[in-house]
Amino acid sequence: MSALSPTLELACDLIRRPSVTPVDEGCQALMMQRLSEVGFTVEPMRIEDVDNFWAIRGGEGPVLCFAGHTDVVPTGPVVSWAHGPFDAKVDDQGMLRGRGAADMKGSLAAMVVAVERFVVAYPQHKGAIAFLITSDEEGPAVHGTRAVIERLAARQQRLDWCIVGEPSSTTLLGDVVKNGRRGSLGGTLVIKGVQGHVAYPHLAKNPIHLAAPALAELAAEHWDDGNDFFPPTSFQISNLNAGTGATNVVPGTLTALFNFRFSTESTVEQLQARTRAILDRHGLNYDVDWSLSGLPFLTEPGDLLDAVAGAIADVTGRTTTPSTSGGTSDGRFIATLGTQVVELGPVNATIHQVDEHVLASDLDLLTDVYYQTLVNLLA
Amino acid sequence: MSALSPTLELACDLIRRPSVTPVDEGCQALMMQRLSEVGFTVEPMRIEDVDNFWAIRGGEGPVLCFAGHTDVVPTGPVVSWAHGPFDAKVDDQGMLRGRGAADMKGSLAAMVVAVERFVVAYPQHKGAIAFLITSDEEGPAVHGTRAVIERLAARQQRLDWCIVGEPSSTTLLGDVVKNGRRGSLGGTLVIKGVQGHVAYPHLAKNPIHLAAPALAELAAEHWDDGNDFFPPTSFQISNLNAGTGATNVVPGTLTALFNFRFSTESTVEQLQARTRAILDRHGLNYDVDWSLSGLPFLTEPGDLLDAVAGAIADVTGRTTTPSTSGGTSDGRFIATLGTQVVELGPVNATIHQVDEHVLASDLDLLTDVYYQTLVNLLA
Repeated sequence: MSALSPTLELACDLIRRPSVTPVDEGCQALMMQRLSEVGFTVEPMRIEDVDNFWAIRGGEGPVLCFAGHTDVVPTGPVVSWAHGPFDAKVDDQGMLRGRGAADMKGSLAAMVVAVERFVVAYPQHKGAIAFLITSDEEGPAVHGTRAVIERLAARQQRLDWCIVGEPSSTTLLGDVVKNGRRGSLGGTLVIKGVQGHVAYPHLAKNPIHLAAPALAELAAEHWDDGNDFFPPTSFQISNLNAGTGATNVVPGTLTALFNFRFSTESTVEQLQARTRAILDRHGLNYDVDWSLSGLPFLTEPGDLLDAVAGAIADVTGRTTTPSTSGGTSDGRFIATLGTQVVELGPVNATIHQVDEHVLASDLDLLTDVYYQTLVNLLA
Repeated sequence: MSALSPTLELACDLIRRPSVTPVDEGCQALMMQRLSEVGFTVEPMRIEDVDNFWAIRGGEGPVLCFAGHTDVVPTGPVVSWAHGPFDAKVDDQGMLRGRGAADMKGSLAAMVVAVERFVVAYPQHKGAIAFLITSDEEGPAVHGTRAVIERLAARQQRLDWCIVGEPSSTTLLGDVVKNGRRGSLGGTLVIKGVQGHVAYPHLAKNPIHLAAPALAELAAEHWDDGNDFFPPTSFQISNLNAGTGATNVVPGTLTALFNFRFSTESTVEQLQARTRAILDRHGLNYDVDWSLSGLPFLTEPGDLLDAVAGAIADVTGRTTTPSTSGGTSDGRFIATLGTQVVELGPVNATIHQVDEHVLASDLDLLTDVYYQTLVNLLA
């Protein structure tokens, strides 16, 4: 086998460290060492049981931050893997295999190598380059990027642009970048009735019967039309439970867990008010416990999106498509600083699966795209 | 304390035997001995783990059967009882206290004593007197009265009238008798969708959302108007469950347990067809597993109801009210023979509760009512 590129060497080195959330297994120490060797000031930020670090190089002017996570999701049954999940090998088909190859140790390696090259080529670059790396993106994500961002905000750290290494591509490297994400608003709804015996329904108030028309209306509600950047807001009930297990008892309460994935056309307050209005219209006695997982964020066309799209076009010849689909990411926390955030990484087809893999040559392309983005913004 | 009446003596003797379903603890042996001493042919019928017996005295002509159960429901926490649940004592307020005092060892004692008196007074009575006693009415009720009735049917045993000793009275002894019971039809409904991620609802089919309008329609449906003897058929969903527990997963299925308590205005087949029609109209992919607990039965005004009402009036001065309300009883099995069935027993206010009790003097009144019914029908 021919020698691996610097990006693939580093990617393999990271994959061989079994850093299942929230364990880092030395991935960050390795990255910090490489970055400090090219002039970065590195700052480990262990918060509770989570390793994070912040690193910055440069002076006055705009700050471009690379963000990502060293933690990976569990392997599932190791016997189901064709190769050991932490063996990190490039196979005959040119695939880099291992847990984290796509999500997102390949991106981390590409970032580090691209930055190393850039600071050698442009030692007097404009502004500053930063890294914000966590070991808890796949887990509770409380003591990770969110907590680091709070500290950066407290010290008024400037953060103009951010590239998150999440695997955004769907078929070919760079075909899709994420320029935003929908918000996520959860709720626990408890509808109260009166428990009783099924043989004496007039003495009970069945919360299932009371809830059904209201749930039907919530499920059928049209919340908004979305906009040029976001699909329409969606509402899903994920869990519904009522009953004592006994078949002759009318239960006293019904509990429903629901979730909004919402566009920038609806606010949290609007969704809450409209939900309550439907429940109230049905005369229900209820409580709702709300839980906001993340506000929607959007990076409209501008410096960052132009630089990224231009780099992709230069390196791959492809026209990228900005998208806001999919789940949440740490981008939601970074965007709260007013930062332009774009997610750009390899093909996401096998993430979180057994036999996770990525085309090895895509990581070299990704290195070039990150490098060209640095050139476009800070050269 | 003055000496107890024969009925109370026997009731206490029975209550002191802790015969929690399906255990009989010798209650039936005691009853069989008393009955054989006054000319009954007794026939123990142990079926699987359940003790039952059949006893009959007399010759040609109509058969009046007393039916009941020696088993009692569990005590719950014994420390919660003011007196030991199996101590069987008449307290200062004239209350007979203990598990089974009302449901239904008091009735069993009253039946035996009434019959003993009757055969002494009318040794050449018309027709025949019978007893059908089980030790599994409060439990699965499979190897109890139902199985005995199957055997009696197989040998073409005549059974014209039956008095079940269930505690039918609500405030004063004899104020209510049950002349029928609604049917009970259960169903387990599984509605199938397609599991998925809440962030990608277009790739999933949420069975909660699909089910809600159909459940609302089932809950609102008017099944029938009932009739002079039965309240309208009622439908209740007792248990509803969907969801994996995770808040970001759209579940693949929803399961609902429901129950009809139905009048003689609706048949099992009609209720099943109408349920399916509503589910079909909503385009659902579903399975229903039906479970028939009991068909409705009704004893219209006639010999038995006249004899019982007359006896109650003679002994207590009260006008009894026939009712078909409440849960199921073993009467549903006996009625399948074409038998007129009436349930007549003491006040049911404390049945299945801690500190179950009954007014001791009511059991003596009940003995007189049973006796007078025997006179009215067989003297």
